[in-house]
Amino acid sequence: MGKLINGWFSETSPLWPGWALSLEIEETLYSRKSKYQEIDVYRTKSCGTMLVLDGVIQATEFDESGYQEMLTHIPIFAHSNPERVLVIGGGDGGILREAAKHSSVKEIDICEIDEDVINVSKKFLPSMACGFSDPRVSVHIMDGSEFIKNRQQYYDVIIVDSSDPVGPAETLFKHSFYEGMKTALRPGGMIATQAESIFFHKDIVKSLINIAKTLFPVYGYAVTLVPTYPGGNIGICIGSLGNDVKTPSRQPDKTMKEKLKYYSPEIHRAAFVLPAFGKDLFN
Amino acid sequence: MGKLINGWFSETSPLWPGWALSLEIEETLYSRKSKYQEIDVYRTKSCGTMLVLDGVIQATEFDESGYQEMLTHIPIFAHSNPERVLVIGGGDGGILREAAKHSSVKEIDICEIDEDVINVSKKFLPSMACGFSDPRVSVHIMDGSEFIKNRQQYYDVIIVDSSDPVGPAETLFKHSFYEGMKTALRPGGMIATQAESIFFHKDIVKSLINIAKTLFPVYGYAVTLVPTYPGGNIGICIGSLGNDVKTPSRQPDKTMKEKLKYYSPEIHRAAFVLPAFGKDLFN
Repeated sequence: MGKLINGWFSETSPLWPGWALSLEIEETLYSRKSKYQEIDVYRTKSCGTMLVLDGVIQATEFDESGYQEMLTHIPIFAHSNPERVLVIGGGDGGILREAAKHSSVKEIDICEIDEDVINVSKKFLPSMACGFSDPRVSVHIMDGSEFIKNRQQYYDVIIVDSSDPVGPAETLFKHSFYEGMKTALRPGGMIATQAESIFFHKDIVKSLINIAKTLFPVYGYAVTLVPTYPGGNIGICIGSLGNDVKTPSRQPDKTMKEKLKYYSPEIHRAAFVLPAFGKDLFN
Repeated sequence: MGKLINGWFSETSPLWPGWALSLEIEETLYSRKSKYQEIDVYRTKSCGTMLVLDGVIQATEFDESGYQEMLTHIPIFAHSNPERVLVIGGGDGGILREAAKHSSVKEIDICEIDEDVINVSKKFLPSMACGFSDPRVSVHIMDGSEFIKNRQQYYDVIIVDSSDPVGPAETLFKHSFYEGMKTALRPGGMIATQAESIFFHKDIVKSLINIAKTLFPVYGYAVTLVPTYPGGNIGICIGSLGNDVKTPSRQPDKTMKEKLKYYSPEIHRAAFVLPAFGKDLFN
């Protein structure tokens, strides 16, 4: 396991040159190359168990809630009556876990290209992979951009929980993929996609907002705090065929509220307020 | 300059064990111990010039606006008619630069314990230290907690731009210092203090909120994004003898708006909306 230096894992990427977050590792739990990517799981000193794909942090137990809850509940609570949800990517199961908290939801499909990510998460990250055990969940192992070609006007909410646009997730950042998702939505449907950082990836963010703007009558870009992501935050790009995306149309009930670590109706609205420089991203 | 490893600076601290942000360095511009602390200035590859005190990142040109603008403009815009401002710490000059954007402000005092920080910033960080050149600014080289003992009912806004509570800034996190600031405020006055991270320093944050709650009829805690700070965000604790702190009572005019990179009246309000787990900090 030569990836650690003096017991520390360091995340570097051409997407954030000259910048590295390092975490002290207590134990390497898994390290193997799948058909698509390198998968590593570490027990960190400060952030619990951590999943890493191709050297990039995907989730840690410490701060995954800011990502999984916001990416899931913003579109699902913005929708008036979500029944069918599709998750593309999301092999760790965290988005499934959150979607399953909604009693109106009857079917949850997940389309993950890399079966090994699912199996590794089930073994080492049960607090996220518990999402797979919900009886409403059906697993499809294939490329998400191919999967949606066979679904027309079917889903109420599609959530894209992808890695960065380098490697297997590259097609998930393209206009044609967004068109496919739009076709796969029922009237009033919504999409929500992992949409990088307004500090580091202005060009990617602008391009995603522009795609959403072209295809959807209602769209928006929200920011959520995830300390282990580059710069400690990440964006969510939303497109809607119906309701406003910035305002929840329903509220979590008391039972659900107690389970939420990050999401609230108030932070749903606040997440769409960007720093002043963010207005340039919409031009 | 043995602090760099293979050309990278790494920030570690007992305040965030097992965690390090590393930045690639193009050149060490300054590295010397002052009477109080080690001062380093680097030209980084990704974040422009960076000021480091005792090994901890204080400001980089890339992302200082999220800190300086929010710490300054939240209290000053919440106040109805701010005329006298005191900055404690803030030797890089960034808070002075922001305070000077307010035309109602007639006097700006700064009390910085370490004169070397000011001199180094004037030399290497002119985009922040330009704040010192405003004719309304008076510089006082001394301990902030001593300085305020000689000022009673004088300031409209006091801003504490301190380093972490380890080293020279330790007294600035204590109840007696907050009491001193309260005494130094005119009726309707406000204080705003650097207040660490809700992810890493829950105990410090709770203690600061509790002090503010005990001393001030109106108080609040806001979060702002600063990618180079631990976890990419930092908190601001506010106490007010008058107006609500969460709502700006005045708006930036057109000239000022054009100069703002981060602050807006909308993000002023949104910054006070914390993740769901944040409600525990107020108990």
